[in-house]
Amino acid sequence: MTEFELIQQCFSSWPVTNPALMLDQGDDCLIWQTPQPLAISIDTAVEGRHFPEWASGAQAAQRAFLPALSDLAAMGATPAFFTLALTLPSPLNETWLMDFSARLQQLASDQQMVLAGGDTTSGPVPVISIQVHGTVQQPLKRSAAIAGDDVWISGYTGLAAAAIQALLQDRHADIPDAWQQAYWQPQPRIALGQVLVGKAHAAIDISDGLWADLAHIARASQVHIELEAERLPMHASLEGLPQSEALKLILTGGDDYELAFTAAEEQRDAISLLSQQLGLPLTRIGQARAGDAEVSVMHNGKPMTLDHQGFEHF
Amino acid sequence: MTEFELIQQCFSSWPVTNPALMLDQGDDCLIWQTPQPLAISIDTAVEGRHFPEWASGAQAAQRAFLPALSDLAAMGATPAFFTLALTLPSPLNETWLMDFSARLQQLASDQQMVLAGGDTTSGPVPVISIQVHGTVQQPLKRSAAIAGDDVWISGYTGLAAAAIQALLQDRHADIPDAWQQAYWQPQPRIALGQVLVGKAHAAIDISDGLWADLAHIARASQVHIELEAERLPMHASLEGLPQSEALKLILTGGDDYELAFTAAEEQRDAISLLSQQLGLPLTRIGQARAGDAEVSVMHNGKPMTLDHQGFEHF
Repeated sequence: MTEFELIQQCFSSWPVTNPALMLDQGDDCLIWQTPQPLAISIDTAVEGRHFPEWASGAQAAQRAFLPALSDLAAMGATPAFFTLALTLPSPLNETWLMDFSARLQQLASDQQMVLAGGDTTSGPVPVISIQVHGTVQQPLKRSAAIAGDDVWISGYTGLAAAAIQALLQDRHADIPDAWQQAYWQPQPRIALGQVLVGKAHAAIDISDGLWADLAHIARASQVHIELEAERLPMHASLEGLPQSEALKLILTGGDDYELAFTAAEEQRDAISLLSQQLGLPLTRIGQARAGDAEVSVMHNGKPMTLDHQGFEHF
Repeated sequence: MTEFELIQQCFSSWPVTNPALMLDQGDDCLIWQTPQPLAISIDTAVEGRHFPEWASGAQAAQRAFLPALSDLAAMGATPAFFTLALTLPSPLNETWLMDFSARLQQLASDQQMVLAGGDTTSGPVPVISIQVHGTVQQPLKRSAAIAGDDVWISGYTGLAAAAIQALLQDRHADIPDAWQQAYWQPQPRIALGQVLVGKAHAAIDISDGLWADLAHIARASQVHIELEAERLPMHASLEGLPQSEALKLILTGGDDYELAFTAAEEQRDAISLLSQQLGLPLTRIGQARAGDAEVSVMHNGKPMTLDHQGFEHF
């Protein structure tokens, strides 16, 4: 089998289909048609930057696919299909490729997503770009927060960043399962995003850190966001750390892919009910108000400062 | 200015807009809505593979954007918007980046295309993935050729491959303008693709070589395609080469992005008229018929054989 045939075999004949996909792999373009608005996002994962050189194909698939999927969650969209632009070193590492494609197929099937097109090229290191597409009638925009809104976060932040710190020092580090899980298998909050449509105003997924990502909502909505440090949910696995270190992880650690969102005060009961129904902690951590379009964090009644407000992508 | 700010500045505030784009850059997803089917294709260009290390930013933009655009031409689609996943070495080569983005903006404006989203990452060499999106009511599918169809080609093939051969030996090689142009600035046949809707049956763009790409139509349509070597259009700049070398370039040279298409015999006059209206040679080079789903080339009444049938992407 040639490399070309192996790649073809790895990425074709996946079982999921979608009736709105009038044409998929095997023509110059795929063709998609629905009357509903289409939410679209592209994300790239580069070896050595978004996952370590020693990651398995399956781990690389998770680190590439799940963050991309999370952008659909942040809009409240229903996943439909994705495309894959895959650059791999030549000669091919066949074991890695088969592990990658098998895991990708599983992740996509979990979401009923079709791999509808792509391109494969060779280059010095693995570079994986995934573009996700989903339908959404009323997208949750970053610009829709209103002064007076509560600010909420799903789950826990800071766990993926804690994992990265430990794994950078020693890939065999004995770290809590929750950290491993947060870094290697983040859980895009697709179900939450969908039920928030009509209840929440603005939403964003936490890829660069809670503070930095909420600042995007503050700027896009022209509101001030004030967080209360005492309200920030702290996962049990961070409780052994010095408080200032734990707070820094929670506020600036990226890669968790939880959803932060804003909603009117009247929605508090409805959101608590959602939390129960989804079995997912939803914590009220602050408020949006009129004022400078930025984020402040109050701790013991005083504003906190931090060394930096999250990661820049470059 | 930080690298992040420079990148933001290079790719935002471009002038083209589209009313069907309900949301573009600056949220978790872009949102697109039209009742028309959407044609979508993603293409990756890797430095050292799709363009040489010494290419300028503008040249890299051309080699990345124009082949992607060509996939819309092959469906008969009207370009609408694109996304850009850009991996660049750090520290940034700012001159290269500004040259790249300025040229990309120009190319996109030529097509009234919006840069609607993207991702920027760092990696060892430039890797540029571009996903193009266009609207099309009746796509020209590879699978739509019918036994009895004429087979046509636009313009000339083999010129880009001739350029590559020469440039690989010496980047300052004194080669014909037509070869330079074919390699660095291929002309996606957008206008042709659009007017072929309703007149042609199947279409494909020539990225891997005329022979190999027509074989895709043969397989998808389950027809045999027979080309007549004497009919193949030979550009004046190839006439100095030995005939067998010129024929090999024409039949197997990739990267020209001309359109090959099939149409019923009754369309011959209409297609000749299109050729005049577009100022673009359209040449009838063979026929589709019942038989093995492959391509044969007749030369002096005998079938030709070639060393290989085009490039594999890997």
